[in-house]
Amino acid sequence: MSENNDELKGKVTERLKYAFQHQKKKKTDIDKLPAVSGKTARTTREVKPRKPKNDANAHGVKIIPLGGLEQIGMNITAIEYDDTIVVVDCGMAFPEDDMLGIDCVIPDISYLKDNIKKVKGFVITHGHEDHIGALPYVLREINVPVYATRLTVAIIESKLQEAGMLESTKRKVVKYGQTINLGNMRVEFIRTNHSISDAAALAIYTPAGIIVHTGDFKVDYTPVFGDPIDLQRFGEIGRKGVLALMCDSTNILRPGFTMSEKTVGKTFDNIFAENRSHRIIIATFASNVDRVQQIINSAEKYNRKVVIDGRSMVNIISIARELGYISVKNNTLIGIDEMKNYKDDKIVLVTTGSQGEEMAALSRMAANIHKKVTIKPGDVIVFSSSPIPGNEKSVSKVINELYMMGAKVIIEDTHVSGHPCQEDVKLIYSLIKPKYAIPVHGEYRHLVRHVELAQEMGIPKNQTFILKCGDVLELSEKQGKITGKVPCGGVFVDGLGIGDVGNAVMRDRKILSEDGLLIAAVTIEGGSNTILAGPEIISRGFVYVKEAEDLLNDARDVVLDTLDKDLNRKNVDFTKIKNDIRDDLNDFIWKQTKRTPMIIPVIEVI
Amino acid sequence: MSENNDELKGKVTERLKYAFQHQKKKKTDIDKLPAVSGKTARTTREVKPRKPKNDANAHGVKIIPLGGLEQIGMNITAIEYDDTIVVVDCGMAFPEDDMLGIDCVIPDISYLKDNIKKVKGFVITHGHEDHIGALPYVLREINVPVYATRLTVAIIESKLQEAGMLESTKRKVVKYGQTINLGNMRVEFIRTNHSISDAAALAIYTPAGIIVHTGDFKVDYTPVFGDPIDLQRFGEIGRKGVLALMCDSTNILRPGFTMSEKTVGKTFDNIFAENRSHRIIIATFASNVDRVQQIINSAEKYNRKVVIDGRSMVNIISIARELGYISVKNNTLIGIDEMKNYKDDKIVLVTTGSQGEEMAALSRMAANIHKKVTIKPGDVIVFSSSPIPGNEKSVSKVINELYMMGAKVIIEDTHVSGHPCQEDVKLIYSLIKPKYAIPVHGEYRHLVRHVELAQEMGIPKNQTFILKCGDVLELSEKQGKITGKVPCGGVFVDGLGIGDVGNAVMRDRKILSEDGLLIAAVTIEGGSNTILAGPEIISRGFVYVKEAEDLLNDARDVVLDTLDKDLNRKNVDFTKIKNDIRDDLNDFIWKQTKRTPMIIPVIEVI
Repeated sequence: MSENNDELKGKVTERLKYAFQHQKKKKTDIDKLPAVSGKTARTTREVKPRKPKNDANAHGVKIIPLGGLEQIGMNITAIEYDDTIVVVDCGMAFPEDDMLGIDCVIPDISYLKDNIKKVKGFVITHGHEDHIGALPYVLREINVPVYATRLTVAIIESKLQEAGMLESTKRKVVKYGQTINLGNMRVEFIRTNHSISDAAALAIYTPAGIIVHTGDFKVDYTPVFGDPIDLQRFGEIGRKGVLALMCDSTNILRPGFTMSEKTVGKTFDNIFAENRSHRIIIATFASNVDRVQQIINSAEKYNRKVVIDGRSMVNIISIARELGYISVKNNTLIGIDEMKNYKDDKIVLVTTGSQGEEMAALSRMAANIHKKVTIKPGDVIVFSSSPIPGNEKSVSKVINELYMMGAKVIIEDTHVSGHPCQEDVKLIYSLIKPKYAIPVHGEYRHLVRHVELAQEMGIPKNQTFILKCGDVLELSEKQGKITGKVPCGGVFVDGLGIGDVGNAVMRDRKILSEDGLLIAAVTIEGGSNTILAGPEIISRGFVYVKEAEDLLNDARDVVLDTLDKDLNRKNVDFTKIKNDIRDDLNDFIWKQTKRTPMIIPVIEVI
Repeated sequence: MSENNDELKGKVTERLKYAFQHQKKKKTDIDKLPAVSGKTARTTREVKPRKPKNDANAHGVKIIPLGGLEQIGMNITAIEYDDTIVVVDCGMAFPEDDMLGIDCVIPDISYLKDNIKKVKGFVITHGHEDHIGALPYVLREINVPVYATRLTVAIIESKLQEAGMLESTKRKVVKYGQTINLGNMRVEFIRTNHSISDAAALAIYTPAGIIVHTGDFKVDYTPVFGDPIDLQRFGEIGRKGVLALMCDSTNILRPGFTMSEKTVGKTFDNIFAENRSHRIIIATFASNVDRVQQIINSAEKYNRKVVIDGRSMVNIISIARELGYISVKNNTLIGIDEMKNYKDDKIVLVTTGSQGEEMAALSRMAANIHKKVTIKPGDVIVFSSSPIPGNEKSVSKVINELYMMGAKVIIEDTHVSGHPCQEDVKLIYSLIKPKYAIPVHGEYRHLVRHVELAQEMGIPKNQTFILKCGDVLELSEKQGKITGKVPCGGVFVDGLGIGDVGNAVMRDRKILSEDGLLIAAVTIEGGSNTILAGPEIISRGFVYVKEAEDLLNDARDVVLDTLDKDLNRKNVDFTKIKNDIRDDLNDFIWKQTKRTPMIIPVIEVI
């Protein structure tokens, strides 16, 4: 296959050029087929013909990731051609362990601000936080329209409402198959499957060629809601000739295929059948509407009421219900306060907290601090999830606590991934047959494996790219290369502060977290250079003060010695005194305790 | 099986009593067999006959875990009968994520100190930190002899030497099959396999019956060094009648059998065969001597020199070599400084850091801060390990960094566990057939699964126990029940401090780590209650000061207002003033930033 590939490529390239120069506004054969269901009526319009570029002026389209590479989360990529920038996704990242006190991380969008006139809009692939979470922050600085599918827009609107930005933000619901015009580009939304409904891949038609961005996706031939991924359209667009494929790498280390969401429904049925006499509690991701649908299906089959618990889940499920993404009988869903009216064997509680998040509903139940639910022996608790890397220990903690309360915990066969495994990715390459492969959505090692796989699929090595954030990759039929670098990085959000906490603050927090602090406070008469009050030693987070009186008294003597020495010099220099106190106290404390608390001299001069 | 069990139990019990009352100092048939190799000569002596206990005085033996349950690590269990306490293992635990700044955690041994006259010695199952790490701390307070197998004693001695305690500590090497007398008990060391050589299970002969403690073990029919686990002796002791089995639960959630260590050797051979032209770097656990042996075997076969890097690994391998636990040709091992004399394809580097530990050798190579090794494109790096829960993200980080440097990383089929899976555990139950099952070495959920498995193996539910630290479990032929509770818990070690950092200090560190601190310093003239200097606002870890001048100026005004109000009261109370400053500043900062830094008022009164 790889031997024939270059030749094949050549043909595809020719075809691509042709397609671009001669495309007409007409429906393709596939577009004439009757829609599979009313909800998914195909609305694809072929891209309008563009005036062909003068060859002399022909240049590449720029792909500029501003986040989402070398890290998990914070997905955002700018696609730029001349005066047009279209931005794919605008996600946030959860803080790493060493980002002390940080609430979340959002992308540095200086490049977009510097080119604000070019930015035509955000096109969003789906409604997960790592793809939409930074919108309320970013839109304040770049107020451009947001385009997404129906559920995705509804979730974004709920976030904008909370931020009081609903009025000021233009947003537009795009249907699958529909194409929107943004400057010199057009973007087509293509149906995919994922762990949230209404996920879309994007075909971005630029003057330099078509870029296909899969977003996060899986290939599900039997999805719970709606239709399977539109593989026909992938094939059709591939046939036109695709310049670059940006494809999900999350599960690229896993061989085989990703199982259908429906397989989890069968496990639920079994669990309900085998645990008829106990309460069932199922924890899953707040946004996995299809998963909740399957719990509802089993509950209705086994005559149980369904209670939803956890703020984010209640929110998303109510949005999904309003929009008709969940089908539920009239009396199935009950409020948490109505639970007491039903026997345990008539209840299933669906809850957040499947990742062991400290304040989520299930964690509060496990810690016995949930206001409305008390775990009792016999409760059957299902984790319909797998731990996201980094969360393994918190999940274990919650499971152990639940066992200690006498609950039965089920974790096997209760989850499937929302991302494609190796064979699924190969399928997409076979349909799209891109000239260039640019893996997205993965750590570096995933991207490495992904380009290997792309090469196995026949794409020459020099047409595969592992990008870093801020790289400017310029792609044309002639060549692809990194031609520049733009500013990028993560901006820390801490409370109301955006970007006011940087590395210096983070370093201080780290020191403080490990060994606490010592304050040496003294008041000095500036004329005579004599000590009026103090030195007083105050410590926090360093040592249990009552048992360390001797140590702190000795520390006071150390400061007295330093002051004695420095205040008797010819030129009294209070900056030097502070430094000396810091050094002398540091030496003393290290010798005594092998610890290095932060030392803060406070000198009041009168 | 479970139906016949009670009857069988009855017989076993009779036999046990008989054995205890009539045992003679003679070799059993099995003991007469020729030793399999010189190194493993059997030295089992049958337990000396004991004066039978008067039935009226007969009572149970106490099993008191002082650590190792509800947590990973810090294994230590007291076995007590009348005036004798024997302590099994004395491990430390690594700090959890929320134990900020803590180096390690050691067990609270108040109970042992309160009963110091009874404590006859420590019997140690193997040389891992979670079984020996607390010895240098604990022996300072309870100076009793330590008994262990040869390699285990050597590793303990190396720790004691570092702590300057070698002279003051009695220790004794015990051979497999040998029995030592400790007060009214005797302890027999039985050969097992594990991820460190010289692991032992213990048969503890008490007047109330035999307790078998497996330690950490696996069943390896083809170990790299020495003989397989002594299953015959397990069977023989089981035949005598065993009161209680305390068995490893680490892998109890995994079905099937644990693979032999030798399977990893085959993988190494393949890796060496397939990567003949590049440098090979293999990271594994510092103490896994057999793993290093297999790397040496492959290296010698493929004509490479072996370099060991990482302080702890160099230390353990040199101990193992001295004692003959590693067999290596004269010229195979070279020093790290000699590496430069060989081509890359003639080198294999064995290193620590397989868990992504920040300062370990491999992590330093990945971060490009290793003084002597620079990773180059083409280097083949093998993780011969699997991440310990909680380390997944640090391991991923190192792997990503290595890929970024152009290395090839291999993680598949390069490790086997050192703990028994379900079928291995069933084998041990079949051989020992204990009256009581007390699972050890696992989180709560492992212990739950383990007692289920014990019940599947025919042990009645009321004869299985999930203990918590500090529980006093009293066991006799008649009954087993928890009869008391002793003090227990973890003691934090931070630098030189042992136990001087408690929950209050930890709470402060947590607050400081998340939002930093604000100091409000002011000097007041005590007579007139007027402000002489300040208030000065100093912040650390809160906000980037240069950009927050306005905020800090406003904070100063808040403090001025508070002082103004409080200093003009009839009775000026400086404690109240401090509290008011704290409250007012807290309110102000929360409103402005939604953060809650620690607020420290410093008032110097002249």
